[in-house]
Amino acid sequence: MPYVTVKMLEGRTEEQKRALIEKVTEAVTETTGASAEKVVVFIEDIQKNSYGTNGKLYSDQ
Amino acid sequence: MPYVTVKMLEGRTEEQKRALIEKVTEAVTETTGASAEKVVVFIEDIQKNSYGTNGKLYSDQ
Amino acid sequence: MPYVTVKMLEGRTEEQKRALIEKVTEAVTETTGASAEKVVVFIEDIQKNSYGTNGKLYSDQ
Amino acid sequence: MPYVTVKMLEGRTEEQKRALIEKVTEAVTETTGASAEKVVVFIEDIQKNSYGTNGKLYSDQ
Amino acid sequence: MPYVTVKMLEGRTEEQKRALIEKVTEAVTETTGASAEKVVVFIEDIQKNSYGTNGKLYSDQ
Amino acid sequence: MPYVTVKMLEGRTEEQKRALIEKVTEAVTETTGASAEKVVVFIEDIQKNSYGTNGKLYSDQ
Repeated sequence: MPYVTVKMLEGRTEEQKRALIEKVTEAVTETTGASAEKVVVFIEDIQKNSYGTNGKLYSDQ
Repeated sequence: MPYVTVKMLEGRTEEQKRALIEKVTEAVTETTGASAEKVVVFIEDIQKNSYGTNGKLYSDQ
Repeated sequence: MPYVTVKMLEGRTEEQKRALIEKVTEAVTETTGASAEKVVVFIEDIQKNSYGTNGKLYSDQ
Repeated sequence: MPYVTVKMLEGRTEEQKRALIEKVTEAVTETTGASAEKVVVFIEDIQKNSYGTNGKLYSDQ
Repeated sequence: MPYVTVKMLEGRTEEQKRALIEKVTEAVTETTGASAEKVVVFIEDIQKNSYGTNGKLYSDQ
Repeated sequence: MPYVTVKMLEGRTEEQKRALIEKVTEAVTETTGASAEKVVVFIEDIQKNSYGTNGKLYSDQ
């Protein structure tokens, strides 16, 4: 605890995910006082053909 | 905002997903007053071998 | 199945929630072929002091 | 209802998922009084390169 | 890990929640081999006026 | 997009939530290249009597 979920468009590299987990964990520990070993981060991919805004599929925009 | 997530069994076509996003967005704007460009829709697949009811895996039913 | 979750800002009336569930269910049945009695809708409130975009708390914007 | 989601590391066999759904459903019916046919279980895979604790990607630990 | 979320209708007692967490944890450890101290359980309340099936608000059914 | 959800124990102050949203947004923009106005952060409270690890309710530990 805390548990952080980041949903973002598919296609990020492993290097970006590694950096994201590191930096988000720092942001959470700094601002909440939680220790880093308690912070859990999940990254979930959003697929372009399964996501939309303004009534339109992202892959059509 | 609003953010809508639709979890459904895998296997829908892109055409069905396109129509789903269009119609769900209309339903949300009509009933909440939110403007369409603020409505976000995520579609998440449920896999038949990772889902169950009545204590049984869906793919066994 | 399908399972629909709508996250939106707190403060909608029961009448709006009733209409939202009715219309979203119609949108889902029309476009996916699922029968209405299989469609489940959850409405989750987002609190203004627990939500932000652009790095800012919504209640500060 | 109830709706149970189990997020766990990818790589479980279908046999483990079958047993998990059976046993979790029993645990829920015993303790809440819900009937088994109302209990829905979703299993979601966590990928090793999309998950981290202590600021580190799981696949690096 | 694993992370289990149980969404159920509001109104369960603390005693039911305590039993639910105990029994669900046992079900998960038995079937996945995870150790109990790694199993995390979240219970989320569903409110009767924010939930519906068959196009109808639960509190109207 | 991205959409970030932070689940943490109830009881954080508004000031902590404000700082959390600011710092998490920075962490996400730095590491993914997303612009800040696209980053959405939700904070969800975990209640002590609705959460457990090791088979035990948090409020009993």
